[in-house]
Parts: sequence; structure tokens; C-alpha cells
Amino acid sequence: MQKPSRHIFICTSSRHTGQQKGFCHSKAGVEVLQKFMEEIEMRELGGEVFVNNTGCFGICEKGPIVVVYPDNVWYKSVTSDDVTEIIESHIEGGKVVDRLAF
Amino acid sequence: MQKPSRHIFICTSSRHTGQQKGFCHSKAGVEVLQKFMEEIEMRELGGEVFVNNTGCFGICEKGPIVVVYPDNVWYKSVTSDDVTEIIESHIEGGKVVDRLAF
Repeated sequence: MQKPSRHIFICTSSRHTGQQKGFCHSKAGVEVLQKFMEEIEMRELGGEVFVNNTGCFGICEKGPIVVVYPDNVWYKSVTSDDVTEIIESHIEGGKVVDRLAF
Repeated sequence: MQKPSRHIFICTSSRHTGQQKGFCHSKAGVEVLQKFMEEIEMRELGGEVFVNNTGCFGICEKGPIVVVYPDNVWYKSVTSDDVTEIIESHIEGGKVVDRLAF
């Protein structure tokens, strides 16, 4: 298995207990996740860019949260409308989207 | 908010749909997650080491999977008995646990 060059984690407040609730879940984290998966597939980046839903990062007031490793870049209040910019600027272009980063 | 110095992701096959199934879930990924959380709390590492459950990494036959960023170290077939060694050797000591890494 080839490790990804970029690994994108999106909080959807996914509970290991199977509960389906939480801030990023209610704040459309799932929409953001789905948009990332669509963009990755459309651009055929699946071999080098991984996407995962996660549980809570503990900074719910800033959600939905997106974290990109190994860059260690954290994005706040991400909407599905922001996903294309993150992909094009950061993932493909190497330039962090400053207006969303914290 | 201070970014963590290490961020540990544990696959528990957490579905954003709320489903509670999958390989790492059935393979005791949740026990591994809980053991990491206990060790982090006991050693008072909570401010610098974050732990999150995730959805599937797509390499289920090697599960439960644990990924440590920004190091980009991937561990396979992790059991709750391995967690103390990962914390002491890798997280506290900086030495990857070679027998589990891939």
C-alpha cells in the first residue's frame, strides 16, 4: 500500500457508538465530506489523497473542521462551497487557503 | 487553540450515517481507541496529543489501523495490549514501533 501524499480528515462527529449527532454533523460536516470525495474522484486523485470522516476534534464552535496532514493545516467553518478552493489551491497547488485556516 | 504535536487516528469504522459495523469495529478498534484515551489522560498528555476515531482507511485486512501524524506512521493489527508500547516508545520516546509499522 502506498501512503497518501495528503490525508484529509473531516469531522462529522462520527461516534464509535453509532450515535448520529454532534455539532459538525448538524453543521453539514457530512456534506463537506461528500463534496471532498466527489472532487477527489473527479480529479482522479484517489491514489495519492485520502479522505476520512472522524469524531470530534473538540473545537465545535469552529466547525465543520477539516484537517490536512502531514501539512498540519486546520480549516474552520468549512462549507461544501469551500471544498473546490481547498482542493485546487492547497491540495493541487500547495497554497494554504488563508481565509479558512487557523 | 494549540495544535497537537501528535495526532493519533484510530479506525473504528465509524460511519457518518450512524451505522455501527465494519472490520476495525468488529476487530476491537474501539478497545484500542479507549486504551489510547486512558493512557493519554493518565500521562497528562491531553494538551499535546490528540486522539480521534475515524471511518475506514480501506485496508481492512490489516486492521485495526492506527495512524500517527504529522509523522505519517501507520500501524497495523493493533491490539489494546500494544497501546502502552506505542505511547512510550513512539509518542513519548520518538522511536517508531517497527514490529507494528508498515
